[in-house]
Amino acid sequence: MAGRLAILAGGGALPVALARACPDALRVVFDGVAHDLAPPTHMHRFERLGALFDWLHQQGVERVVMAGSMTRPPLDPAAFDAEMQTIAPRLVAAMQEGDDGLLRFIVSLFEERGFAVEGAYEILPDLTAAEGPIAGPSPHAGIARDAARAASILAALSPLDLGQACVVEGGQCLGVETLQGTDFLLDCTARTPEALRAPVGQRGLLMKAAKRGQDLRVDMPAIGPDTAAHLARAGLAGAVIEAGRVMILERERAIEAFAQAGLFLIARRL
Amino acid sequence: MAGRLAILAGGGALPVALARACPDALRVVFDGVAHDLAPPTHMHRFERLGALFDWLHQQGVERVVMAGSMTRPPLDPAAFDAEMQTIAPRLVAAMQEGDDGLLRFIVSLFEERGFAVEGAYEILPDLTAAEGPIAGPSPHAGIARDAARAASILAALSPLDLGQACVVEGGQCLGVETLQGTDFLLDCTARTPEALRAPVGQRGLLMKAAKRGQDLRVDMPAIGPDTAAHLARAGLAGAVIEAGRVMILERERAIEAFAQAGLFLIARRL
Repeated sequence: MAGRLAILAGGGALPVALARACPDALRVVFDGVAHDLAPPTHMHRFERLGALFDWLHQQGVERVVMAGSMTRPPLDPAAFDAEMQTIAPRLVAAMQEGDDGLLRFIVSLFEERGFAVEGAYEILPDLTAAEGPIAGPSPHAGIARDAARAASILAALSPLDLGQACVVEGGQCLGVETLQGTDFLLDCTARTPEALRAPVGQRGLLMKAAKRGQDLRVDMPAIGPDTAAHLARAGLAGAVIEAGRVMILERERAIEAFAQAGLFLIARRL
Repeated sequence: MAGRLAILAGGGALPVALARACPDALRVVFDGVAHDLAPPTHMHRFERLGALFDWLHQQGVERVVMAGSMTRPPLDPAAFDAEMQTIAPRLVAAMQEGDDGLLRFIVSLFEERGFAVEGAYEILPDLTAAEGPIAGPSPHAGIARDAARAASILAALSPLDLGQACVVEGGQCLGVETLQGTDFLLDCTARTPEALRAPVGQRGLLMKAAKRGQDLRVDMPAIGPDTAAHLARAGLAGAVIEAGRVMILERERAIEAFAQAGLFLIARRL
């Protein structure tokens, strides 16, 4: 794709991987948001988005990619530049729609100013997985039934903007991902009374997929090396992720973590 | 309703309440299953259902009600009577369908032999609740939105035989009931990181409802005094139950527990 790229970076390994893949990209970080990028980085403030837009245009940037974890920093309205003051009323409305609404709004701001907003998965082809086994052993025969039930549950919840993941074992649902995220779901699964669990050897799976209508450019579900540790603690047999629509963060380390824990990792079209 | 009644009792307060309401009913308990009934009780064995059916007919029983908690006792095939030996192949099939399938099968066995299977809620009119407030304070204004979202989630999951309850707060789902039950859901909710919770004063609710197609005669969702304790620990504002389709166990104690904890309890048609 043509045009200069800027990486708008939060914390974690993904912006680092993007910077490695695109050495000419500008590395933009934000005051109050932790990041792991090596220099040269350019620090900006959310309160001065107008200045950021101008600067990006001056640098010849035509494409932006937002990546990395970003907790909402406190905004100081007294520091707003003119553009931010114009934006403020719409910003307030977007913030009330939760994280999804806020992300959609931020994407629209960049697009209105002529930037193409790209997904990290478009720049790093290895970020998602093609259909097939990725790591670990072959699953036991009962997993096909569990996977079918998990897919039904995610499909039923997806129109409600809910259920990016669920746990199924022995045909029974042991958990649905809610606001607290995947690791929390797995930690709750680990607390399931033993009497309700399937025998070892017939343990269940985590299925993770994108919700319908989710903007994958800025909000793609992800698994990583830590997921393997949480799965192991939950006593599950492995994970199925949606092919092409779930990121594998730190892929090599993740594959090694799944394999070492004896957990399967499979991508499947849903 | 005409005909003599037998209470087939497991543990807990519900069979006791039925026995109090129906002093002429026969009290049938099972070898290996704890119960709280006062004498006279009649002990039977699951291995000798044929003998139980014969005995019930001899006693003039025409109606049965199954109530109380009943963990599956181990069955000794060597002790099966002739009728149980005939039943065994269908029993094996039913057991593989999980608790729901097993209950449906047991109901069908009694019906095939001419017994009417009644629900405890048909005998104890106060067991469920009519639409309206039941206990505790009036909910804050935001609860209407949370209740609407919770109802959508339960409606989406119900066709999948899942989601007898969920927790919603600030418009966001904090948990869906799965195999582990309502108290487990509330205990997981209690572990939600504080940063994801709504401010005190805008806390959310538990909604509990029957699944579509659920056989309410033998498997009606329930709340009780303990639910209030778990709700309080989860930091929620109260509970909404489906009018007419959720039991309130130990109603007086439950109402007192909700009121004392400052939790609302409301019944609503869904």
